[in-house]
Amino acid sequence: MSEENIKRILELLDSNRSSEVREEINELHPGDISEIINNLPKEHQLSTFELLNIDNSADVLHELFDDVRENIINSLQSQKLASILDEMESDEATDIISELEFEIVKEITNKLDKEDLSEITQLLKYDEETAGGLMQTEVIAVDRDAKRDEIIEIIRNESSEVEKIHYVCVVDKDNKFIGLLEAIRLLLVSKNFKAIDMIEEDIISVNVNEDQEEVANLFRKYDMYILPVIDDDNHLLGRITVDDIIDVIDEEASEDAYKMVGLENEDRVFTHPLSSVKKRLPWLTLNLFTALLVSSVVGIFEVTIAKLSFLAVLMPIVAGLGGNSGTQTLTVITRGIALGELTIQNTFKAILKEISVGLINGFLIGSTAMLIAYILKGDILLGAVLGISMVCNMFIAGLVGSLIPVIMKTLKIDPALASSVVITMLTDIGGFASFLGLASILLV
Amino acid sequence: MSEENIKRILELLDSNRSSEVREEINELHPGDISEIINNLPKEHQLSTFELLNIDNSADVLHELFDDVRENIINSLQSQKLASILDEMESDEATDIISELEFEIVKEITNKLDKEDLSEITQLLKYDEETAGGLMQTEVIAVDRDAKRDEIIEIIRNESSEVEKIHYVCVVDKDNKFIGLLEAIRLLLVSKNFKAIDMIEEDIISVNVNEDQEEVANLFRKYDMYILPVIDDDNHLLGRITVDDIIDVIDEEASEDAYKMVGLENEDRVFTHPLSSVKKRLPWLTLNLFTALLVSSVVGIFEVTIAKLSFLAVLMPIVAGLGGNSGTQTLTVITRGIALGELTIQNTFKAILKEISVGLINGFLIGSTAMLIAYILKGDILLGAVLGISMVCNMFIAGLVGSLIPVIMKTLKIDPALASSVVITMLTDIGGFASFLGLASILLV
Repeated sequence: MSEENIKRILELLDSNRSSEVREEINELHPGDISEIINNLPKEHQLSTFELLNIDNSADVLHELFDDVRENIINSLQSQKLASILDEMESDEATDIISELEFEIVKEITNKLDKEDLSEITQLLKYDEETAGGLMQTEVIAVDRDAKRDEIIEIIRNESSEVEKIHYVCVVDKDNKFIGLLEAIRLLLVSKNFKAIDMIEEDIISVNVNEDQEEVANLFRKYDMYILPVIDDDNHLLGRITVDDIIDVIDEEASEDAYKMVGLENEDRVFTHPLSSVKKRLPWLTLNLFTALLVSSVVGIFEVTIAKLSFLAVLMPIVAGLGGNSGTQTLTVITRGIALGELTIQNTFKAILKEISVGLINGFLIGSTAMLIAYILKGDILLGAVLGISMVCNMFIAGLVGSLIPVIMKTLKIDPALASSVVITMLTDIGGFASFLGLASILLV
Repeated sequence: MSEENIKRILELLDSNRSSEVREEINELHPGDISEIINNLPKEHQLSTFELLNIDNSADVLHELFDDVRENIINSLQSQKLASILDEMESDEATDIISELEFEIVKEITNKLDKEDLSEITQLLKYDEETAGGLMQTEVIAVDRDAKRDEIIEIIRNESSEVEKIHYVCVVDKDNKFIGLLEAIRLLLVSKNFKAIDMIEEDIISVNVNEDQEEVANLFRKYDMYILPVIDDDNHLLGRITVDDIIDVIDEEASEDAYKMVGLENEDRVFTHPLSSVKKRLPWLTLNLFTALLVSSVVGIFEVTIAKLSFLAVLMPIVAGLGGNSGTQTLTVITRGIALGELTIQNTFKAILKEISVGLINGFLIGSTAMLIAYILKGDILLGAVLGISMVCNMFIAGLVGSLIPVIMKTLKIDPALASSVVITMLTDIGGFASFLGLASILLV
């Protein structure tokens, strides 16, 4: 549907029929509008965004691609931007504000609604990647002794401000969180029921400083739609909704995949090439030095290679298989850590497993390689050198591929940073050293 | 909290105080119970599961790790398993049934509740990775003309069967889906309101045969909690809840990370080593043959290497940087495809970008390498050969790293299958051939 829409909107834009665009586009769901604007040519993005009514502007802005949004925000008049921010949910408005340049923030703050401004200022204090950074302050809280009709009245008054209510938070007189009340229960009880009589059995909430990955794990574990956020003294501060958690999960998955190959999260398909170059250069420079290190290990055996040049022909096999085998282990372990499957108790078992897998696969693949080398070169000793060094290197692959991310986790460094460049450096060194080393002893 | 719980439960189990375990563990949330059982030593898992009451058994079984669940299912008596399945939601019961061996299925089916059995049989028809495979048949549907109190009555009657209602589906007299009604609205309207007057503005549903990745994209795009599932004629068949979508997103993210290094999804941290060996062997065998191919390319230049053995020392640098640079591009493109950022219209732009990034980084890293080679070996021509071949190879990396996943997507092959083994084969060949080829011409 979007592709047709984009085509149609483009035609209208090109023939300057913007009032028709205004009419058509405002009828669509914000999710569709964002998709359309994301895919319009750059020169039409701002002008199309400006055709949106205020509700749609508020809903769409947060959903746009980072570079598209940045573009639009920097071109909007500050008065317009302020009124869009007033209309947004507090968590999303905060995200936008934190992306703005300081000059624009200054201009905007005195144009914002007082109450919204104080909420945003509050939220800006929290680290973006914590529960506080994810929560919205729009939350319906009722007293533990509130009766059914009082609660319904509160919901009625708040329903224009709070989207997707579904649950009401029950608090005591000090605003300390007691439990969640599923709104639907209000339909099914008599009017004498109090909030405290209707709360859910399991009382689940999250501290405002908890890391977002841990917050996502709570949603996974308890299948929640809404998670109340509290401070150290159990006071209710806000709530996190499951749709924001989906964004977190996507982000964390991208991040893990990215870190493993040394990419930064902001380096996307359509990031400006020069910006991508800049982001990738440090890692590639590091890679140049690991490659030089590998090369210097090979250099130790230059004399051997000078005598037996076919060693240079075969040595990439040992290194290549070790590298790929090590990356497999690294991926299994890193993913296990990300999904919370790997705990302190079972780590040793996991490392032992990966080493066994490396050894067995090394033995099987090594034997095959040995056979092939023997058939091709007719030299049984050469075959043996190739086979044995492959077993060694795939043992190394299993060991470093599992040990390094586990060590990093223990040191509280993100295990996904145990990127492939370190693992392949080690398996390259392992491969070249074992193959050329054995060859120097047995073949020269 | 879980670690303490596990310790305490283990102590109780070891001293055979199972009635206390029964009492304590049944008080916990199913999410916590699953975590505890997952982390118990294998010999205690079944016996602890058997202490759960029927509600908890039903809620916990689906949440256990695959291998733990398999273990428990195969040891449970069929009567017990049948009553647990009767208690589960239809989608989860179907997942369990589809994992069972045929013999056990036969035994169980005549013990199941008739209605549950027919729902499960219905659901088993759908591919596991489609909307049909995800949906549950437990859904509240009301007629478009039903008035407020009728709807509330229907909710009351179904509320024991259906969890997390939040929304009611509105249908016409032929059970065709018309729209969603947010249950909370029923609290706020007068009793004369009909279902049709209260439905949400945007009518979003998904066809039963839609792929699960597309279903996840709908949840992302429209920030939904519940998505109605319909057949080709718009008849309402069931609903998908957002907590199941979180599982899908996790699964797809694992799958993408896994496929890229040739791993199968079932190959987890604690899969039996021999099973992991078996799963990884085909890919490593493929890898052995790509390595032999690479080696044969090096073989072409064996004479050159015999004359200039230091070429063998330097050649891993060119190949290594190309490989890592290609894997970076591959990750950016594959992730862009997974998140729906890459469309047909913008593909060419994306490939062009990656080639430019490869060229620029190649030029920068290549110059540095050239300089280093000159300083170390004092040979300007050798430095030039190294630098130029690095530019060539990082151009190749950008090209194949972006082109291959895009081609695979166009051919409707999963782009994540464009695994690193293919990319590194191509960058190895590109690196060795350009470096040794140039060296043969310029240095010999």
